[in-house]
Amino acid sequence: MTPTLRTDTPQVESGADTIELLGLVAQLELLSFTRLAADSAQAPTLEQRLELSRFAAASVERRDRVLSRIAELGGDPVSAVAEFEHVLDDFDARTQPGSWWERLLTNYVGYGVAEDFCRIAAAGLDEQSRDLVLEVLGDSERGDLTVAALGAAGSGDAVLVSRLALWGRRLVGESLGVVQALLVSRPGLVRLVDRGAAQEGAPAKLFGELTAQHTRRMGRLGLTA
Amino acid sequence: MTPTLRTDTPQVESGADTIELLGLVAQLELLSFTRLAADSAQAPTLEQRLELSRFAAASVERRDRVLSRIAELGGDPVSAVAEFEHVLDDFDARTQPGSWWERLLTNYVGYGVAEDFCRIAAAGLDEQSRDLVLEVLGDSERGDLTVAALGAAGSGDAVLVSRLALWGRRLVGESLGVVQALLVSRPGLVRLVDRGAAQEGAPAKLFGELTAQHTRRMGRLGLTA
Repeated sequence: MTPTLRTDTPQVESGADTIELLGLVAQLELLSFTRLAADSAQAPTLEQRLELSRFAAASVERRDRVLSRIAELGGDPVSAVAEFEHVLDDFDARTQPGSWWERLLTNYVGYGVAEDFCRIAAAGLDEQSRDLVLEVLGDSERGDLTVAALGAAGSGDAVLVSRLALWGRRLVGESLGVVQALLVSRPGLVRLVDRGAAQEGAPAKLFGELTAQHTRRMGRLGLTA
Repeated sequence: MTPTLRTDTPQVESGADTIELLGLVAQLELLSFTRLAADSAQAPTLEQRLELSRFAAASVERRDRVLSRIAELGGDPVSAVAEFEHVLDDFDARTQPGSWWERLLTNYVGYGVAEDFCRIAAAGLDEQSRDLVLEVLGDSERGDLTVAALGAAGSGDAVLVSRLALWGRRLVGESLGVVQALLVSRPGLVRLVDRGAAQEGAPAKLFGELTAQHTRRMGRLGLTA
């Protein structure tokens, strides 16, 4: 029996690209932990404090699974994460939330776009890494809390709803800027998007896809994108 | 076969006392989570950020085990925790750390005394609750990190060591003040200390015991208490 040619076999250089994307995912989870923990400290009710601390803890567990995969692939987990230490610095500096609700929306929308990008790029990974990324980023509990909290707050408060819709438009612009900056500075990520695009659609469609997913996410909140 | 008289059977009123102590333990773990997460965000190295986020996540897991026990005993976990929402407010206001090292020491010493108090009071609990409290508070990993980090920083830096020793003396005074305030305002906790003292020593010895444990803890850091 001769070995069959597998079209999804990683190319020689894709090991480093894989570790690059996994480093980005792990960094996003680390930032997510830090934000969720800060949200927990500031949450208006004790129930929300407890719940947000659980989400923060879950981020740690997810991140450590990604770090283990980096080590399995022969990468150095800490260096891989450190590569993206400042990935959201500009985004954070430009999107200081003015209220608890804006803060919730910032995390949901900001991380939502970055995570969608990682999911799209993950199409270019080996099967095991891809499955891990999709599983890690597929956890929607946090989104459900945001949807429930914002839905409850917004019902009957037209002013809040229209302010948050405006805030969401600003956030998506800044988030797409983060993705743009990544594509310019990280050719490895571009290669993964290109490789994944064979099954997933042309790389030119990336921003269209990210915008469409943002619109769906805002729709879940009852907000106009 | 007649039922034997068990001297460790909880008294009628001790159910509420048990829930009170478990609420305090859970609140300390929640505060611990919040501080460890903030420490993680401010840690000087990425390795420390990752490690402190793991400790924060472990606090959530420990706290939720205590909350489950409160529910098992028929208590309301959220109310039990809420009872102690402000337990460390005064302590925190009076012990704002001026450096990363003071911050580490504040958490180690401040929580150390509060946790020692909980361990002593736990002697008055039913066996299952007592075992849970001792197990939850027995996790020394966090202390090990502090010991390693402060030990490395202090070796050869006599000025830092003497500043930290001074800071430690201030912290233990404030921590004992927290315990004092609890004993004055929470007769349920006093009853538990009294019940536990039958095997453990007189309640009058409480502050002596807490001080002795503080001295041991500072000794592990190479600091004079």
